[in-house]
Amino acid sequence: MTDAGFGARILELADRLAEISESPDALTVTYLTPAHRAVAAKFREWMQAAGMSVETDALANLTGRYAGTDPRAKTLILASHYDTVVNAGKYDGRLGLLTPLVIIEHLHRSGKKLPFNIELIAFSEEEGQRFPAAFIGSAALTGKFDPALLETRDAAGLRLGDVMRETGLDPGEIPTLTRRGDDLLGYLEVHIEQGPVLLNEGLPVGVVTSITGPLRYEVTITGEAGHAGTVPMALRRDAATAAAEMLLAIDQRCRAVPGLVGTVGKLGVPGGTINIIPGRCEFSIDIRAPDDAVRDVAGADIVAEIERIAGRRKVRVETKEILRMASVRCTPAVQQLFSDAIVRAGIKPYRLASGAGHDAMMFDGITDLGMLFVRCGNGGVSHNPRETITAEDADLGARILLDVITNFPAA
Amino acid sequence: MTDAGFGARILELADRLAEISESPDALTVTYLTPAHRAVAAKFREWMQAAGMSVETDALANLTGRYAGTDPRAKTLILASHYDTVVNAGKYDGRLGLLTPLVIIEHLHRSGKKLPFNIELIAFSEEEGQRFPAAFIGSAALTGKFDPALLETRDAAGLRLGDVMRETGLDPGEIPTLTRRGDDLLGYLEVHIEQGPVLLNEGLPVGVVTSITGPLRYEVTITGEAGHAGTVPMALRRDAATAAAEMLLAIDQRCRAVPGLVGTVGKLGVPGGTINIIPGRCEFSIDIRAPDDAVRDVAGADIVAEIERIAGRRKVRVETKEILRMASVRCTPAVQQLFSDAIVRAGIKPYRLASGAGHDAMMFDGITDLGMLFVRCGNGGVSHNPRETITAEDADLGARILLDVITNFPAA
Repeated sequence: MTDAGFGARILELADRLAEISESPDALTVTYLTPAHRAVAAKFREWMQAAGMSVETDALANLTGRYAGTDPRAKTLILASHYDTVVNAGKYDGRLGLLTPLVIIEHLHRSGKKLPFNIELIAFSEEEGQRFPAAFIGSAALTGKFDPALLETRDAAGLRLGDVMRETGLDPGEIPTLTRRGDDLLGYLEVHIEQGPVLLNEGLPVGVVTSITGPLRYEVTITGEAGHAGTVPMALRRDAATAAAEMLLAIDQRCRAVPGLVGTVGKLGVPGGTINIIPGRCEFSIDIRAPDDAVRDVAGADIVAEIERIAGRRKVRVETKEILRMASVRCTPAVQQLFSDAIVRAGIKPYRLASGAGHDAMMFDGITDLGMLFVRCGNGGVSHNPRETITAEDADLGARILLDVITNFPAA
Repeated sequence: MTDAGFGARILELADRLAEISESPDALTVTYLTPAHRAVAAKFREWMQAAGMSVETDALANLTGRYAGTDPRAKTLILASHYDTVVNAGKYDGRLGLLTPLVIIEHLHRSGKKLPFNIELIAFSEEEGQRFPAAFIGSAALTGKFDPALLETRDAAGLRLGDVMRETGLDPGEIPTLTRRGDDLLGYLEVHIEQGPVLLNEGLPVGVVTSITGPLRYEVTITGEAGHAGTVPMALRRDAATAAAEMLLAIDQRCRAVPGLVGTVGKLGVPGGTINIIPGRCEFSIDIRAPDDAVRDVAGADIVAEIERIAGRRKVRVETKEILRMASVRCTPAVQQLFSDAIVRAGIKPYRLASGAGHDAMMFDGITDLGMLFVRCGNGGVSHNPRETITAEDADLGARILLDVITNFPAA
């Protein structure tokens, strides 16, 4: 296979996976839906054709094993996730599965084995779209799965534990899945950048230095419902207008600090109607920064400002912290392996932090970590059908990953 | 029956109607649901027991006829609606049905007939909750029903025309329902005030001078979805944050003018998720003022400001005007009849405008109109389970209505 072929094949396979969706006009593959199981079946087929023995675990993670020359040797994990957000792009998660897949296809075709085992792991859930939890797949392999999650429900009211059992998965097996670090050489993840930094730098790839952890809240405002025509403005306790003021406060606070970002992704007046003053409004907050301390101070400031606004507008507010994930540093030696491979490919080795969370975070403290970002087109848009990469960039990403695993220290 | 008995019976019957609902823990009766049909059946029973002959028309309006001494005489309509908003109070609409009901029960028991016919009309739909249209019942009786409404759909995707046919109603009959003004003496509606004015004045009832018409818009903002962790604040085109700025602009514009009110009752990010920058946000606007010109200028200012905000935040906005209803004046002679009856009851005759729309509006230009407001407790809250009236106020409302119809000119 020529070099250009890696990229063309990655894009072709990404297109084929993207044909499978929960909805006819958008790419949506959320945890344990029929589309999700169909994607897993397709990827399993491709892994087997590439010489891997494949297992599906109790969380619907797929683990494809490409054995090395010494079966007792340690294992290098290459991984990412196969679920998507609602109305997703084709490369988020999947690029990190298809890049190692085409490399292992290449090794298999050449009859080449490495002095260690490779496992290509396709995590079943990373995006937190269907159930109120993200990283379900990688959490289970790193001993971080909270059994309380089995009691949570999706929008249709179905319990996660019940959905798992109905699709033939046994939640009772989860505790047995934890991977031991002393069997592992490391964990590598290739991912589309999902932002504009490499695009603005004119570089096809970059070495990830650290992965930012989100701080998340759910906010519920309770005001007083009333008739839209009869309650003077000054007497209103309007939950939606209070929420609006809070959204602008979040926007202003985050704009003031470079690198700090704050997002209200969910927002709504439950059961709202055109002629009723909203008695209730709910929204979510996601705050991130390259430095955890900067993020935490912003979170505290925002919560305090939300309470001040609620007091001034005479509404009640409940602000519930639902996630505070520490940022994770990629192992310096692995960063150097990626950097050396990039230099050998004739490219400037650029390092950058990841504003998005990735499965790699879950392996922090268990084994050495490394991540490679591939340039994202269209201004860096992701979690959106306009997410794009070029075949040339995908190809370079695959060649660099192949170089890194070829040069990865076997002990 | 003693005077106090009118009020006690009105409250008891309102409680009995409120036992029928679409949801177990809130009062919700929207157009043509099983709960809606059950309310109609119950009210029909009560009208028949009070000596009325009752017909159900093609819109599910109930018309109960209490014949006068001369069957060829004209007809005085006493009416309001039996549907409710979601999570409603017990008196909005229903007070205007139960007050005439207890009076007709009283006339029937006393064997008393008036020199004209009375029709008690229970309109089937006024609130616009299930389908994107309000006043469906009274529009049909006044020749204002738009047949295009039959093609509109509820949240479950059901067409209004199909729902009507499935419940045994024939939309083909609608054009035959229009009432001719020369058969009518007038139209009277008793309604809970749904605001705090009478409560603040310390008065149990008030004469309505005019009914404010709403100006309504639906706004759709299209920004750019993106990953919550990777797009710097300055590069975002966040539809929800733009909407937040627009909500505050509406709030500020309406606060600046006494009597002007603006409400965003519906607000949401469709399919929003915690880690995605909203690419779309939708909301509704309802603007009212005692003076149509004041309202219209505010509407134009708000639309212009929304467009300025959209431009500044680099999002697209579509602002669709969906309703612009002129305010309606209650007939001065009928206002005077109510005022005289209030004076005879020993109460100060207070006049006030209605900020809410009522079925009475639809009869403008067809016959003489009058409305009586009854004091609303709990700070004037309505469209809310905390909506309340006292038995004494309900009783006084009934006695005044009885006085007015007894003294209503028969030609």
